[in-house]
Order: sequence, then C-alpha cells, then structure tokens
Amino acid sequence: MTLIDNERLDYIPGTPYSIIQSREVFSFSMDAVLLGRFVHLPIQKGKLIDLCSGNGIIGLVLSERSKATITSVELQERLHDMAQRSVSYNKKQEQITSVQADIKNLPSSIEKGSYDVVTCNPPYFQANEHSDQNQNPHFTIARHEVHCTLADIIQTASTLVKQKGKVALVHRPERLTDIIDLMRQYRIEPKRMQLVQPNASKEANMVLIEGMKDGKPGLTCLPTLSVYGEDGRYTKAFQEVYTRT
Amino acid sequence: MTLIDNERLDYIPGTPYSIIQSREVFSFSMDAVLLGRFVHLPIQKGKLIDLCSGNGIIGLVLSERSKATITSVELQERLHDMAQRSVSYNKKQEQITSVQADIKNLPSSIEKGSYDVVTCNPPYFQANEHSDQNQNPHFTIARHEVHCTLADIIQTASTLVKQKGKVALVHRPERLTDIIDLMRQYRIEPKRMQLVQPNASKEANMVLIEGMKDGKPGLTCLPTLSVYGEDGRYTKAFQEVYTRT
Repeated sequence: MTLIDNERLDYIPGTPYSIIQSREVFSFSMDAVLLGRFVHLPIQKGKLIDLCSGNGIIGLVLSERSKATITSVELQERLHDMAQRSVSYNKKQEQITSVQADIKNLPSSIEKGSYDVVTCNPPYFQANEHSDQNQNPHFTIARHEVHCTLADIIQTASTLVKQKGKVALVHRPERLTDIIDLMRQYRIEPKRMQLVQPNASKEANMVLIEGMKDGKPGLTCLPTLSVYGEDGRYTKAFQEVYTRT
Repeated sequence: MTLIDNERLDYIPGTPYSIIQSREVFSFSMDAVLLGRFVHLPIQKGKLIDLCSGNGIIGLVLSERSKATITSVELQERLHDMAQRSVSYNKKQEQITSVQADIKNLPSSIEKGSYDVVTCNPPYFQANEHSDQNQNPHFTIARHEVHCTLADIIQTASTLVKQKGKVALVHRPERLTDIIDLMRQYRIEPKRMQLVQPNASKEANMVLIEGMKDGKPGLTCLPTLSVYGEDGRYTKAFQEVYTRT
C-alpha cells in the first residue's frame, strides 16, 4: 500500500484495523467511531450503507461488528481514494465497497429500499455559518452543508432503507430539533438517542440518534455518555464503547 | 387551615414552603419540582401560568424564584381546593391565583398572548395506555390524557405565551419526539433540554424542555442530571437543584 503526500496510517480505536488519514485532507473524529458502535446492526448478513463516508472510518468500524456487506459513499475523489486504499490495507474488499458519488444523484447500483441500515456522520455546519469555514475545500465540504443539507441526507436515507430498517446519525445537539423534525417528515421514527457530554457537568456536544422506517412512536434515551471523569481520564463507560478496554 | 380526609402537610424540597397532599388524591413528584427549578423566569415582574397544576406544587416552587404573578390552572375541583388552601397557608394569595378550569376552555380572565412563561407537568400516559390506568379517577385524570392531550397543552401554551416568551414542560423521554414535533407545529422553538436519569448507567426517565415562541432554531442540551451516584445517595448536582443543600 502506498501513502501519498502527508498521509499517515492510524489505528481505529477498539478494532484491529488501521486507516489512512491526512491532516491536510481528512481525519476521522470520535463522533464517527461512536456512531459505528451505537447503531443496531444485523450480525450475520444484510446490507449496510454509510453516506458522506469521508475516509471510510464508519464502514471499517461496522465491518468489525457485522458480516453484512457495506457500501461507503463519498463525494470527494481524494477521500474516496483514501477509503479504497484503507479497505485494501485491511483486506476488506469482499465486504466493503467504496463508491464515489453525490448522495443526491446515486448510481442505480445503489438500490432504493434495499438497505437494513443507513448511517451518516454529516457535515455539522449550515452553509451560511461562515465563521469557521475553512479555506481548505476538503474540510469545507466535510464540515459544511455546501453539497448536501441535513434534509438531503435524511431524505436519501429514507429512500435507501428497507421498511423497518434503521437510519442512524451523529450530529451536534443544536440540530436535534431539525433532525427529529426531518426524520418524522421522511417517515424515519426516532427510536433510540444518546447524548455525549465532555464530562458530567458540561453541556452535551454530540447526539447519536437512530430511527426506524415507519416505526411506531416512542423514543428511548440511553444513559448519557460522559467522555471524561472527575479525574480527567476517560470514564469506564466511555472506554467500554470507544477503546473497548 | 383545615386538613380534610387523609390530607397531610409536606415540605417542598429546597423551599421554606409546605403543601397539602393526599395519598388518595394527589401528591407531587420530583418531576414538578425539577420543572419549577429548570425553567427560565423573569425575576422582578411578569406573568407566569402553570397548566394542569394539580395541588399547585409548581406555582409554589416558582413563587420562591420570582416576584411575577402566578396563575395555576387545574381542572379537578378537589385538587383546586387543595391548591387554594396551600396558597393561603404559605401566605401567597397576593402572588398566586388558583383557577379551576379546563385548559381547552379557559375563562377570559386568562388573557391570550400575555404570559412570559407557561409551565406544565402534563398527564404522562396516552388515554389508550390502559395497562396502569388507575381505578381512582383523580389519579386517572392526572396521569392519563383523558381530558387533555399533549397537543391540547402545547396549543394552549402557545396561545397564552407572549412573543419570545417561554413554554417549559416535563415529560417522559418516550414522548420527546412528539413534544418537539408539536412545539414546532405551534411555533414554540425548543431552546433548552435536560435529561434526568436515575443514575449514570440507566436510561433517562424524565426530560425537561423549554421552547421560545417564534424563537430561532438551536437547541442546548444541558448536562444530564443523574439522581443517584454510585454510592446510592443523591449526586451533588441533583442536590443542588432539588434539595438545594
């Protein structure tokens, strides 16, 4: 495997896998790993798809939990290329397919209504939030809703998922109202939610949420995950899910 | 003051006040006290209204935090009578007015669009959830949506509150999706939310949520409140808000 430019190979916490990252292009965040651990999966077979997949982190995390086939969809060629090489490096070509595509215009190989699970760690910021828009176009596209909005993502997810299949997202709590609103609008009934907060006395800075296509109403709020304890170290609950130690 | 039947006088945690309760009719829960502490209030003046107020617990909790006038609305005559006597006992007649009324048919003295804050600790169970419907009609009305639904409450709250005023509810997390959905439908934008969980490893069993009439989108999730610590005693964070010790 060839690393290009300033790429590096990093371990994925809690897995035996490694992933190609680049400070100049894309590095995965804790959020993606937590989403990959949070979502309910079929274990022995099925079809999973991850949208806005960046360097393919979520696909690799999912591949450790399930034998289902996994499709990772990423718009940017540079990231798609990194993702493909990471799949090869981990010898996951049989299970994971990386597709370079715009989620608003997916190829026919990605069949509607056929997926058991759709995941997405979308761009967090609205296109009009210019304050921290980065000059680097790779970051801008990954972080801001310039090429797809939350509505595009939830609409696409709803189109791809099977009846009673799952759609799971990670986002900032600030957008929780929009997420719930859009999920209902596109017939994804929110079923499980988990807040993540830096420690027990800080506001949540992440929300994991899973809905079911045409599911019955009724939301479960899992125990809020505090990342750090009073001693400034990872909490036991966080370690169990993140580093799995 | 006269106590009738099996009534008793209980302290309200974290206040110098007492309240008339009855095991056979109505006793307040932790939920009501936490809502009374959670909601943002004007301090020096203004108008607050509490819907489905039971024995008037929330009005008394609010009266300790604000000089605003407070209206407590309760449908059941027996509870309204308890509430009035508790107001008198605590010498709060100047500040708190108890009104016996159906929130779907409020008297003209309760002026639309005039309240800074509307609070409600509504019946938690839908009318069709018969499993634990109680034979005691007082409990059934307080716990089940037989006389008013969540939609009735949020619609009424939206009608009563001023522009940019606050509407705050406490409910089960199971209904969070409905709450957010209905708030948006009636132009109450969710702004602050807090989950309450029995301890750090249990699912939340309560959600506090505050919205603003015609507010801008953007939700803050406050640190989740764990009631009990690993030692089985109230956590410091919970004590600070509940018993204020």
